[in-house]
Amino acid sequence: MSILIKNVLVGGKERDIYIEGNLIDTISDAGSSNEGVREADFVIEGRRKAAIPGLFNGHTHAAMTLLRGYADDMPLHEWLSTKIWPLEAKMTEGDVYWGTKLACLEMIKSGTTFFNDMYWYWEGSARAVSESGIRAMLSAVFIDGFDEGTAKEQIRRNEALYEGSKKLSERIIFALGPHALYTVSKESLCWVKEFSEKHNLLVHIHVSETGEEVEECIKRYGMRPVEFLDEIEFLSTRTIACHCVYLSRKEMELLRKHDVKIVHNPTSNMKLAAGRMLYEELKKAGLYSNIALGTDGCASNNNLDMFEEMKVASLVHKAGSGDPTNMPAQEAFELATINAAKVFRLNSGVIAEGKLADIVLLDLKKVELVPNHNLTSNIVYSANGSCVDTVLCDGEILMEGRKVEGEEELTERAEEVAYELVDR
Amino acid sequence: MSILIKNVLVGGKERDIYIEGNLIDTISDAGSSNEGVREADFVIEGRRKAAIPGLFNGHTHAAMTLLRGYADDMPLHEWLSTKIWPLEAKMTEGDVYWGTKLACLEMIKSGTTFFNDMYWYWEGSARAVSESGIRAMLSAVFIDGFDEGTAKEQIRRNEALYEGSKKLSERIIFALGPHALYTVSKESLCWVKEFSEKHNLLVHIHVSETGEEVEECIKRYGMRPVEFLDEIEFLSTRTIACHCVYLSRKEMELLRKHDVKIVHNPTSNMKLAAGRMLYEELKKAGLYSNIALGTDGCASNNNLDMFEEMKVASLVHKAGSGDPTNMPAQEAFELATINAAKVFRLNSGVIAEGKLADIVLLDLKKVELVPNHNLTSNIVYSANGSCVDTVLCDGEILMEGRKVEGEEELTERAEEVAYELVDR
Repeated sequence: MSILIKNVLVGGKERDIYIEGNLIDTISDAGSSNEGVREADFVIEGRRKAAIPGLFNGHTHAAMTLLRGYADDMPLHEWLSTKIWPLEAKMTEGDVYWGTKLACLEMIKSGTTFFNDMYWYWEGSARAVSESGIRAMLSAVFIDGFDEGTAKEQIRRNEALYEGSKKLSERIIFALGPHALYTVSKESLCWVKEFSEKHNLLVHIHVSETGEEVEECIKRYGMRPVEFLDEIEFLSTRTIACHCVYLSRKEMELLRKHDVKIVHNPTSNMKLAAGRMLYEELKKAGLYSNIALGTDGCASNNNLDMFEEMKVASLVHKAGSGDPTNMPAQEAFELATINAAKVFRLNSGVIAEGKLADIVLLDLKKVELVPNHNLTSNIVYSANGSCVDTVLCDGEILMEGRKVEGEEELTERAEEVAYELVDR
Repeated sequence: MSILIKNVLVGGKERDIYIEGNLIDTISDAGSSNEGVREADFVIEGRRKAAIPGLFNGHTHAAMTLLRGYADDMPLHEWLSTKIWPLEAKMTEGDVYWGTKLACLEMIKSGTTFFNDMYWYWEGSARAVSESGIRAMLSAVFIDGFDEGTAKEQIRRNEALYEGSKKLSERIIFALGPHALYTVSKESLCWVKEFSEKHNLLVHIHVSETGEEVEECIKRYGMRPVEFLDEIEFLSTRTIACHCVYLSRKEMELLRKHDVKIVHNPTSNMKLAAGRMLYEELKKAGLYSNIALGTDGCASNNNLDMFEEMKVASLVHKAGSGDPTNMPAQEAFELATINAAKVFRLNSGVIAEGKLADIVLLDLKKVELVPNHNLTSNIVYSANGSCVDTVLCDGEILMEGRKVEGEEELTERAEEVAYELVDR
């Protein structure tokens, strides 16, 4: 299929974007394509709209959207042990499927075309992603609780999931998901490392989200988390380290040395009072283009709106460093687009010929985008997900005029599933 | 006119809200009003919607919406002196009118029915507010630059504006707006105090927004800002002190003693790296119900979305105090509703019989509000302004089904005005 987006703002100029299959084929001055030979199967009028790359949500647990608002304003450990874990223990693959469907809908409606997920019941998530049309990197939570038998099960399960994933759409990318240093044994981490190397898979892991986690690691292994991961040769260009709130200078240097990727989750870190990732220090350490941005799960955010996440990121680092020039709008935008594309090894994150047709059209008539003195500033500091009018992913139209096919039925069913889960 | 909102969620139950004139007359169980004798002139179907009080924006400079995205990511003084002040010097009453019209539209579309403003060209703002149907407290910026002649002019101007305001709609409330201690002389502050006492007017003032301001005050007067305001007997239950980022324990006690009201502007304070208002300390000092929430102007936020402001407020205090239970959702919501109603002496801020019909209906089918385990949590942590479906202010319907009369023409004209201003 081919799609022509006519008269749309790209980098401040009106352009025509011609999409062939799942790629951006040509970008030309608006109107010039009318004279050309090509007729598109489908035409989108882009006047008073701006085309930006689909946003990347670098770290989430999509199915937890079922738990939105279920437990807030609690101390971290009490929140996990009395609210989140008991419910997760009761979850089924069907719950994960519906929770992920709901999350995919929310992401599409707020201009996100890719997310990096870690959750239980991988197949449930994969089925939801497949149906939604969005792009995702999915990892199964790998927790062995330092138990050898569990570790073996987890390894077998991941081998099977990886094999199975080869049959799925290219939109669904299998990754390994060792949960964290306090839940996964050294032996399993070593297996993950070898399997990831052998099959060239990305590895999604929580690193130094809280101060307690760092202390626990020092007690267990006699060194800080990143030092330990370096020691066991776990770190590589394929490692996606989420949170990274508590890093020493030496740990930052190790991340740089191994070209490790980082996902920053400012809203979740603030809501759980986990701490602030030292963005300006990571930049100084040469890690800027390795950093992506994520919302974390809906139980600790409580939405998946990457526009909001860009703003909160910029605000928390300006306030935290006392420097209002810290993380300017352009950087926040890059964390959610071009940097993330590098982190997740995708041929996207920018509107350019030859790139994946993962495209978001913003409605420039929305009051939050008026006046348009500076589009990037408006995107980061003023917009929210509702400014998105149209979403394409992999050359398919997932939303047009804010309408997604079947959304009412989906939200109704997901809501029933959520209530049934908490009443179970 | 009478309006019946049928089958709408109020406090978790389906109700009928009967509005007579500008007041909520009756709230009854859904359906029971059908049997009654009353027929409303206008009926709104409220099924799958929730009624909440219209939100209060406690501190803004509405016309600055024209400068949205015009200058960001700059040090505070450079931002003011090279970008904001030069443009403000060129502004006309027409600009202020269009900027305020744009702001009113944005506020209506995001569920705000009251705002507390301080800006130039009072009549321009008043005309915009009058036409928009929203409720506002408007003060003219009072700056004398410590010059006696200017002070006299400002006083005459304020006396005239106050007289003129008596002829306007009750929706428009005149307040005094002495800008700050570093821009207004002691003599003028004393005049403000007397005039406010005589006519029972609220006084809108910036207090201790930055550390520099406090130092300057100590240099000029030998004491901290609130101490000085106490010394000259300026403080009263009518004082609305905005920002209050830098307060000593003693100053908090003085605010409590005089029942001073406080408006907190977390996004603006973060964006300009001004500092964090010590919310938990103010609560301890007994000032909780005196605190309202505001966005500040669009040049330092850069939107007027009070849903976003509630979330940012809660996040910054959880993160800043290291306590995830700090400012729970219910408190953030109260700062933007019932507390604000007390601060601004309005008979509203809650959905109850006899209160002003300033009502917002949320669309519970919006994906951000699904599932609805806890509506207050969803409002504060997940929603944004686009979850608002219908807005009533003073018993008039300002928006229904997200449509505001004339909004396209308004945004187009305001955008032209904004571009003309920066090119002037």
